[in-house]
Amino acid sequence: MSTVTLSLEEALGLAEAALVKAGVAPANARATATALVAAEVDGQAGHGLSRVPSYALHARVGKVDGTAVPTVSTAGEAGLRIDAGHGFAYPAVDLAIEGLVGLAAKTGIAAAAIHRSHHFGQAGRHVERLAEHGLVGLAFANTPAAMALPGGRRSLMGTNPIAFAAPMPGRAPLVIDMALSVAARGKIMAASKAGKPIPEGWALDADGNPTTDAKAALGGSLLPIGGAKGAALALMIEVICAALVGGNFGWNASGFFDGDGGPPDLGQLLIVLDPGRFGSGGYVGHMAQMLLTVEGQAPARLPGDRRLALRAKAAANGVTIPAALHAEIMALA
Amino acid sequence: MSTVTLSLEEALGLAEAALVKAGVAPANARATATALVAAEVDGQAGHGLSRVPSYALHARVGKVDGTAVPTVSTAGEAGLRIDAGHGFAYPAVDLAIEGLVGLAAKTGIAAAAIHRSHHFGQAGRHVERLAEHGLVGLAFANTPAAMALPGGRRSLMGTNPIAFAAPMPGRAPLVIDMALSVAARGKIMAASKAGKPIPEGWALDADGNPTTDAKAALGGSLLPIGGAKGAALALMIEVICAALVGGNFGWNASGFFDGDGGPPDLGQLLIVLDPGRFGSGGYVGHMAQMLLTVEGQAPARLPGDRRLALRAKAAANGVTIPAALHAEIMALA
Repeated sequence: MSTVTLSLEEALGLAEAALVKAGVAPANARATATALVAAEVDGQAGHGLSRVPSYALHARVGKVDGTAVPTVSTAGEAGLRIDAGHGFAYPAVDLAIEGLVGLAAKTGIAAAAIHRSHHFGQAGRHVERLAEHGLVGLAFANTPAAMALPGGRRSLMGTNPIAFAAPMPGRAPLVIDMALSVAARGKIMAASKAGKPIPEGWALDADGNPTTDAKAALGGSLLPIGGAKGAALALMIEVICAALVGGNFGWNASGFFDGDGGPPDLGQLLIVLDPGRFGSGGYVGHMAQMLLTVEGQAPARLPGDRRLALRAKAAANGVTIPAALHAEIMALA
Repeated sequence: MSTVTLSLEEALGLAEAALVKAGVAPANARATATALVAAEVDGQAGHGLSRVPSYALHARVGKVDGTAVPTVSTAGEAGLRIDAGHGFAYPAVDLAIEGLVGLAAKTGIAAAAIHRSHHFGQAGRHVERLAEHGLVGLAFANTPAAMALPGGRRSLMGTNPIAFAAPMPGRAPLVIDMALSVAARGKIMAASKAGKPIPEGWALDADGNPTTDAKAALGGSLLPIGGAKGAALALMIEVICAALVGGNFGWNASGFFDGDGGPPDLGQLLIVLDPGRFGSGGYVGHMAQMLLTVEGQAPARLPGDRRLALRAKAAANGVTIPAALHAEIMALA
C-alpha cells in the first residue's frame, strides 16, 4: 500500500484545514484535529485521520454542528452536565476535563455527563489527560447499534468503549481502553473490501447465525467479548450514556460513517477519583509494586505499552497514513 | 443429591446461629446471614449458605474479626472512606449504602471506598439496594488471585466482579453482576470432585497451556472473558480496589476458602449517580423504551430476569440446599 508520512504539525494543519473548509469553527477544528492526530500517533488509526472525511461530511450536511460551543451546568455539587450542542465531542471533552480537575480536588469523586454529543474518538486519551493531573479516570460512551443481545437478531447496543487511566510513578499513566466487541467493525470492513473471510467468533449474520463471511457480518451484528457478559456490559453503558446522561440509545443513533440521518445525539460519562482522598497515602507505592510484579511476568506486560512505543516513534518520525487517505484530505483542505 | 428445603426465616436463623457460635457479634452475624440468604434466594449459591462454614472458620482463626465495627470518614465532599476493620464486608456495605444515599442527593455522584474488607458476596445485591433508592449504582471488588495476564503464568488478578444496577419503571431494578472469568472457580472445583473434564476456554494449567483437566486448571489459572480485554478490566479493578482504595492486590490476598494466612485485606468501591441530576428528566421514559425494545427481541431478555424468577420462587417455597451442607451448618450452629 502506498503511504505518505507527515510531521505532526503537517498532520494537524491538514486535518484542521479540511474541517475549517467544511464550515467548522476554528477553535472546534483545532480541538478536533488535535484529538485525531493524538489517536493517529497512538496507533489508533480508526480514531485518527481516517475520520477527517466523514467528520467533514457531517459538518457539511449538518449532522454535526461545527460551530457549536459546549456549555456546562452543575449536576449536584460533584457533577457537571455538558451540552455538546450536537457539535464534535472533543471541545465538550476539553471542557469536561477542565471542570473535573477543579471539582475533584474538593469533592474526591466527580463526574461529567456529556450529552447531544458525537463520536468520542480515542476514549483512552481523554482519561489519560485526567491521569496526567494525578487523578484516576473512567469513561463510558455509547455508539451506533452494532451488537445484539444474546438470542436477539437486531443490533441494539453499540460497541460501547470503556476507558480507564491511573497515574503511575515515573512513567506515563496506565491506560486501558477497549470497545466491547471482539473485533472492530473496521477490521470486518477491510476484510470485506479485500474479499477475505473473517475469523469465527467475530460476528453473526442477519439471521443471528455465526458467520465468517465479512459481507454477511456487515449486514448482521458484531459479537461482544465474553458472550452474555460483554453484552450485559454494553447494555450497562447504554443505560449510563442514553438513559442517565440523556440521549439516544445505540439503536436510535445515526451512523458515524455516512451523511444520513440527523445528529447521532449520543452520550458520554467521565468519572474522576482523587487517589489522595480515597486511599491512605499508599497509592504510589501500590502502583510501583504493581509495575514490578508485572515486569516479573514478562513476556506479559501492562496494557498500553505498545501504544507508548508507537507514540515515541511518532514523536520522532511523524505519522504514516495511506496515500489515498492523504489525497482525500488534501482535496478537502 | 439429597437436599433440604428451609424457609427463609429458618435459613437466616441457622446461618446467624452458626456465625454467633463462631464468635461473631450478633449485629454482624445478622447482617452477614441476611446477605448470604439473599444470595441463596437469588440462585447465587456460591455466595449463599455454602459460605457459612468458611466464614465461621475465618471467624474462629481470626482471619476475619467477627466483632469489628465498621467506621466511616470523609474523602472529599462526595466521598466516603469506610474501614471494615478486617470484619465481614456486609456491615461495611450497609454503612456505605446508608451514607451514599444521603450524599448523592446533594452531590449528584458519590463514592464509598471500603478497605480492610473481606468477601464482597453477591455484588449485584449491593447495587440493587442503591437502585431501590432511585439511584444508579456501580460496584467493583477485587478477590484473591485467580487469573494471569495474557502471556504470564502466575495468577495475579482476582476474578474481580463488576456490578451495576439501575431503577426501572414499574419493576425491580435492572441488575448486571459478573465476575470477569469465563467460568466460576466453583464450577471447576465441582468438575474436579466429579472427575469430569471442563470445556476448552475456561482455564490454563500451571505452565500456561490450555487445559480441559479440572485438577490441572485448579493448579493453574482461570481465563478472563474476552482474552486481553477481560484481563485488562480485571487489572483495572485491582488498581481501583487495591491501589486507590488501599489494600491488597489479588496476588497478595489470602484465600476465601481456607483458614490459612491473615485477613485478605481486600477493597471495594461503590459509586452512585442520581439520574435526576445528570439527565434532563428523561430517565424513566428512556428505561421504559429500553424495556419495550428488549421485549421485542425475545427470546433475548434483560440480564437478571432469571434471578427475579428464582427470587419469586424462593419467596414462596424457601431455599433448597444440599443435605450435606445443611448438616455441616447444623453442626456449627
